[in-house]
Amino acid sequence: MSASKNDDGIVTAGLAVIGDEILSGRTKDRNIGYIADYLTAIGIDLSEVRVVPDVEARIVEAVNALRKSYTYVFTTGGIGPTHDDITADSIAKAFGVGIDHDPRAVAILKARYSDDQLNEARMRMARLPDGADLVENPVSGAPGFRIENVFVMAGVPSIMQSMLDNIAPTLKTGKKMHSETVEARVPEGQLAQRLGEIEKAHDGATIGSYPFVDENGYGTRLVVRSRDAALARKVAEEVRLLAQDLKPDMYREL
Amino acid sequence: MSASKNDDGIVTAGLAVIGDEILSGRTKDRNIGYIADYLTAIGIDLSEVRVVPDVEARIVEAVNALRKSYTYVFTTGGIGPTHDDITADSIAKAFGVGIDHDPRAVAILKARYSDDQLNEARMRMARLPDGADLVENPVSGAPGFRIENVFVMAGVPSIMQSMLDNIAPTLKTGKKMHSETVEARVPEGQLAQRLGEIEKAHDGATIGSYPFVDENGYGTRLVVRSRDAALARKVAEEVRLLAQDLKPDMYREL
Repeated sequence: MSASKNDDGIVTAGLAVIGDEILSGRTKDRNIGYIADYLTAIGIDLSEVRVVPDVEARIVEAVNALRKSYTYVFTTGGIGPTHDDITADSIAKAFGVGIDHDPRAVAILKARYSDDQLNEARMRMARLPDGADLVENPVSGAPGFRIENVFVMAGVPSIMQSMLDNIAPTLKTGKKMHSETVEARVPEGQLAQRLGEIEKAHDGATIGSYPFVDENGYGTRLVVRSRDAALARKVAEEVRLLAQDLKPDMYREL
Repeated sequence: MSASKNDDGIVTAGLAVIGDEILSGRTKDRNIGYIADYLTAIGIDLSEVRVVPDVEARIVEAVNALRKSYTYVFTTGGIGPTHDDITADSIAKAFGVGIDHDPRAVAILKARYSDDQLNEARMRMARLPDGADLVENPVSGAPGFRIENVFVMAGVPSIMQSMLDNIAPTLKTGKKMHSETVEARVPEGQLAQRLGEIEKAHDGATIGSYPFVDENGYGTRLVVRSRDAALARKVAEEVRLLAQDLKPDMYREL
């Protein structure tokens, strides 16, 4: 494994979202949020996401940067049968290995398509970088793959999700992050200073502050996160007391 | 300007989405798709997106990589009053300049908050890197800013959107990308080979192929894109004829 591993029980991941259609706005990505939730739930920290176009050099650059920095890398998109599906070739290039039709992947496609359906374009979906292992695709057959610490998945959300279910049991996971959310009917600016003080006083916990506006005016959601569940609860209690303590001083203009 | 500019009428952009809450899944990003649509519509190519955590070194690294590669860089998130709002400091560091309270930004906050409301935390929102220009925020007052080719915006979608409206008229825009969409009731794998041939025969046009599944089975949306509107129409017509020409050979398993 070329994966960089942390020794402190923290497992990290990078995600490369591959596709011109996301960058043009034509398709709205639904994979980033899903993968973020999924990894958080199993104790893996998603640490960086890059969205890159269907351009080999750009995919190679992103995957090589991410795989050196994080325990695992996931990619979505670009593994179908068309000319713009260049992820497998790009990953082979990133690892400096060859690429060819994989007999296991060919067997899957042969079981799914008749001989006249299994044209050259569809056979492209069986091309895997040397040394890759298959990731099963129960939805539409054509597999994803794993090479070292990089997992290559489809872009179609339902297929990506089924692949991730197959990948998850093989992953090393870390200490889970615990989070506690406090909703304060107080604008962020009124809480800010004391929040910072509370965070500073508690090593190992962070407090995220997310302002919102709804029909009742301004409010702030405060998310305490820690790998230590007891610490998360303790800090959340302090934040709760702070929020109760403060009367909202509304903005002049609402 | 340190912006790298293209001489071929193409204007590019990178986007840095800043925030732990996106990477943890707690907040689902709605800005990437909005900005992608917006820039495409005004003739700017969004070429890369990076999502990074609220960590100074990571923000500096992403912004410096993006601002050297693209005409413009946009950032979202991390410009509020709390301890986790470190974007302005990180941008100052990326440019190697100082940061201080900006008199124009202070005046905006003073007009919005009473003296006892304008605490130290809120005053943080008036800290701008040296040499930055303000980006107006009609929603909640606290401004974004521009330094060289980097535009720093809020993360709250309604505020980000109003800032982008203020920024857009100041941007150089390129030749617009024209797109034509053809929906084919044919699985992607059956179209793939001839699509690739059509694309190859037409320099200056690309064909994106996006498979989907609905209640009627498999289909493929084909998106022809070109900066030459006539060429986009011509290629789309060829794709339309191809799609009509083919009878669907359905997957064995649906």
